[in-house]
Amino acid sequence: MNSMKLTILGCYAATPRTLTNPTSQVLEIKNHLFLIDCGEGTQVQLRKNKIKFSRINHIFISHLHGDHFFGLPGLISTFRLLGRDKEMHLYGPKGIKQAITLLLKLGDSWTNFPLIFHELTSKEQELVYEDSKVTVETIPLDHRVYTNGFLFREKMGERKLNFEAVAEFKIGKAYFQNIKNGKDVTLEDGRKISNEQLTFNPPKPKSYAYCSDTAYKPELVPMIKNVDWLYHESTFLDSEMHLSAKTKHATAKEAASIAKDAQVGKLILGHYSTRYKSIELFKEEASTIFQNVELADDGKVFEF
Amino acid sequence: MNSMKLTILGCYAATPRTLTNPTSQVLEIKNHLFLIDCGEGTQVQLRKNKIKFSRINHIFISHLHGDHFFGLPGLISTFRLLGRDKEMHLYGPKGIKQAITLLLKLGDSWTNFPLIFHELTSKEQELVYEDSKVTVETIPLDHRVYTNGFLFREKMGERKLNFEAVAEFKIGKAYFQNIKNGKDVTLEDGRKISNEQLTFNPPKPKSYAYCSDTAYKPELVPMIKNVDWLYHESTFLDSEMHLSAKTKHATAKEAASIAKDAQVGKLILGHYSTRYKSIELFKEEASTIFQNVELADDGKVFEF
Repeated sequence: MNSMKLTILGCYAATPRTLTNPTSQVLEIKNHLFLIDCGEGTQVQLRKNKIKFSRINHIFISHLHGDHFFGLPGLISTFRLLGRDKEMHLYGPKGIKQAITLLLKLGDSWTNFPLIFHELTSKEQELVYEDSKVTVETIPLDHRVYTNGFLFREKMGERKLNFEAVAEFKIGKAYFQNIKNGKDVTLEDGRKISNEQLTFNPPKPKSYAYCSDTAYKPELVPMIKNVDWLYHESTFLDSEMHLSAKTKHATAKEAASIAKDAQVGKLILGHYSTRYKSIELFKEEASTIFQNVELADDGKVFEF
Repeated sequence: MNSMKLTILGCYAATPRTLTNPTSQVLEIKNHLFLIDCGEGTQVQLRKNKIKFSRINHIFISHLHGDHFFGLPGLISTFRLLGRDKEMHLYGPKGIKQAITLLLKLGDSWTNFPLIFHELTSKEQELVYEDSKVTVETIPLDHRVYTNGFLFREKMGERKLNFEAVAEFKIGKAYFQNIKNGKDVTLEDGRKISNEQLTFNPPKPKSYAYCSDTAYKPELVPMIKNVDWLYHESTFLDSEMHLSAKTKHATAKEAASIAKDAQVGKLILGHYSTRYKSIELFKEEASTIFQNVELADDGKVFEF
């Protein structure tokens, strides 16, 4: 219930191959399944990873390069074939609505569920989703086309009752919800009991920042300060630093610098160019700068 | 050299699944590789089947339902990444140009090779490709949206020299090409030798008709009369005849009726609904009407 779970559906750069998939991942947080990016083949990866299509109600697209959204038209068509009737919310750069609606129109196959587009144009960070338990904000990135990362944060939960203290002061159940909300209690004899005496701090809210695709951008640091997990693209190794600047991608060491400066809990690397023999090389280079590095890989699951 | 080869990349209806792919196939004929339809995942299927991307110069799209063309934007992007510079010719319904160009524009990633669209609008059969060895014509089909099948025909080749006869009459090499082209020969002594005495008939030109997606349409019969291979969709079995009429698809028996009336050499079934336990059921039903039935399956190769 209180865990955060990240399933990597695909984390390789550019074109899909027999054994590597373009970018897509699913974040489970506070009972939501958020789909982040949707490269070609995502729907098959969802099936392979046994993720229930019906639990996805929000899709976040970072940018309109094919390896991050060419799986979206097919996924939407499949939702229709599966008889979906719930709303689907799509967050992505301006243009995504025109693209999806054109493809559905050409096939004369409009969805039988409400497809709600939230088109993004701002170059400043903005709140794009909020409910009682979670917020999602954009993270403006630096890539060849307009691109946003996404920052997922749990909200601070209710305070936890200290049952021993509550029993000691003989406080009735009727007061519990107020106490969890942080209120003090005045007993019948007039004594005032502070909330701190009756509760423990709630668990620290968890957070996840998704940053792909992007060049090295130090301005990210304050936006993602202290997040628990940071997924930062690392298309290249140091030896291809020149390509990284030219194509507005990052190296493993650049990703690690961002992680270090933002003092994140864990750095997850991904969006690997397929030119390298082993993805372990990305971990080796990043680890020279930041200690807690993990490698994303297709089908890998991270749990908090 | 003189064979025709059909590789099935995908032949299942609707949504891609872990073990079944939507429609795409490659026809090798007279040294061409023609790609026919391009459902999501086609580029991975091309790799799995070890088909050289660079040999594909012509792509034929039957209609604009996702399971027949959602793999196309990704494939085109991959051609770009592979450094293609040769022309690519795309044949498909009007609208395909707008869709592809919009997707490439949104990603700010126009191709660095000429992408030439041949948009189809006619409801009559028309010739869409011709060179010295092959013709490709449309086959207007009956589906929920504008749809064409495609008819691939080898042209009649040169006549084959009868080397014994040529030696007997002591005819020099300089005459051979004329003889292969069907000319008679006058010897130095004035005798006239007819071409029939000097040559054999060339092999019968081969032909392949691709008909998917379509309802049962008897008007197809004269268009595909006597083709060597007919691929005809058979989404349903007899038990789902009611769905077949409603969705403008065909049953296995309907496909077999077309094959029988057109007196084709071999019927290849495909575009199966995934609701059935075994595709063998399609062959069983079709075989009650037409004898020479084969089942398409992903990765299967047919050679003539």
